[in-house]
Amino acid sequence: MRISELSERSGVSPASIKYYAREGLLPAGERTGYNQTDYTDAHLERLRLIRSLIDVGGLSVAATAAVLTAVDAPDLPLNEVLGTAQQALPQPVAPPSRASVERITALAADHGWHVHPGNPGVRTAAAVLDGWAAVGRGDLESVLPAYARAADLVADADLDAVSDAVEAARAGRDRASAAQTVVVGTVLGDQLLAGLRRIAQQNAAGRRYGPPPEGNSS
Amino acid sequence: MRISELSERSGVSPASIKYYAREGLLPAGERTGYNQTDYTDAHLERLRLIRSLIDVGGLSVAATAAVLTAVDAPDLPLNEVLGTAQQALPQPVAPPSRASVERITALAADHGWHVHPGNPGVRTAAAVLDGWAAVGRGDLESVLPAYARAADLVADADLDAVSDAVEAARAGRDRASAAQTVVVGTVLGDQLLAGLRRIAQQNAAGRRYGPPPEGNSS
Repeated sequence: MRISELSERSGVSPASIKYYAREGLLPAGERTGYNQTDYTDAHLERLRLIRSLIDVGGLSVAATAAVLTAVDAPDLPLNEVLGTAQQALPQPVAPPSRASVERITALAADHGWHVHPGNPGVRTAAAVLDGWAAVGRGDLESVLPAYARAADLVADADLDAVSDAVEAARAGRDRASAAQTVVVGTVLGDQLLAGLRRIAQQNAAGRRYGPPPEGNSS
Repeated sequence: MRISELSERSGVSPASIKYYAREGLLPAGERTGYNQTDYTDAHLERLRLIRSLIDVGGLSVAATAAVLTAVDAPDLPLNEVLGTAQQALPQPVAPPSRASVERITALAADHGWHVHPGNPGVRTAAAVLDGWAAVGRGDLESVLPAYARAADLVADADLDAVSDAVEAARAGRDRASAAQTVVVGTVLGDQLLAGLRRIAQQNAAGRRYGPPPEGNSS
């Protein structure tokens, strides 16, 4: 298909398509003549993946490129694809305090979690403790165990999904799509959880304080 | 204190301090002479709150301003402060498909959640389903129940914390700091959960596939 059709079907502008191709996120189309390039359904699918990671997952173009490189590496174990996806997610700029890193490490130990000290989640969670310490007055300790239990629940479901993808790859099916499943699940999972948390918060608030003032809760 | 000291103690540059004051996020300091302005500890505390919301929470300056307006409104019920904080969090740009909104609404009904159709979490979670449908091959349905249970767990802990803040406000203590607790908890909670999810994922992966290749998991 021409770039105009690819643009229409993917909802991505021709300028962005060319930009993604220049940055190596999207394979180049096939030159079929002067000023004319041909694209396939594989390009369309790839564009949808790129837009999901950027629009829904909130990844930068550079982070998306890093994740797609891991998806495309034919010999990279899926387990390491997961690690690459974790690293690509946005992280706080400032390094967290030592005390907060130690608190998160202790929380992990309480839950019997074996975790690499360089795990990006340690930094993210520790930055939250620092932010809270700077401004919060309530007791963050009281919510930590519930958050840790929730993280355990979703991580188990996540790894079940990864196992399914690994099995599919072993069964001779497409390794690239298994890797894609791992990446998309890792990136979109945070957003899914954040969205459901807001819904559950509204429900919990309604149970305690009555329906919202608009009176049109459904 | 002078702006130089405020800058040093908060880690925020004088240019950013002036910018936040112009945008209404930070009250103006007191003019004490030609080209000289005096700031108090309240300014320092406010700057720390602003930086937590922006750096750790990922809010834009405009979203931070909206949230701080809710924190400062003396008569706004804390319940509505929570709603304002929810609305301020980043949301996907494109509206989700009707089918995905219905799927999330059905999931909420399965969990006995009463939710306003305009809840921003519905849009966020539905956008994830759309993103997944566009590229994912695995079965998202298999992970949804675990995510919903996790959301329930954290929302209950969140609302316990809100209740504590409400009680503190009723007991005649500072309403502004109760509102601040609600806002900071809502915004930072997503990041805390995302961080713990990565730690728990690494633990779950290690349990299934052995320690990471670096061999230095602790």
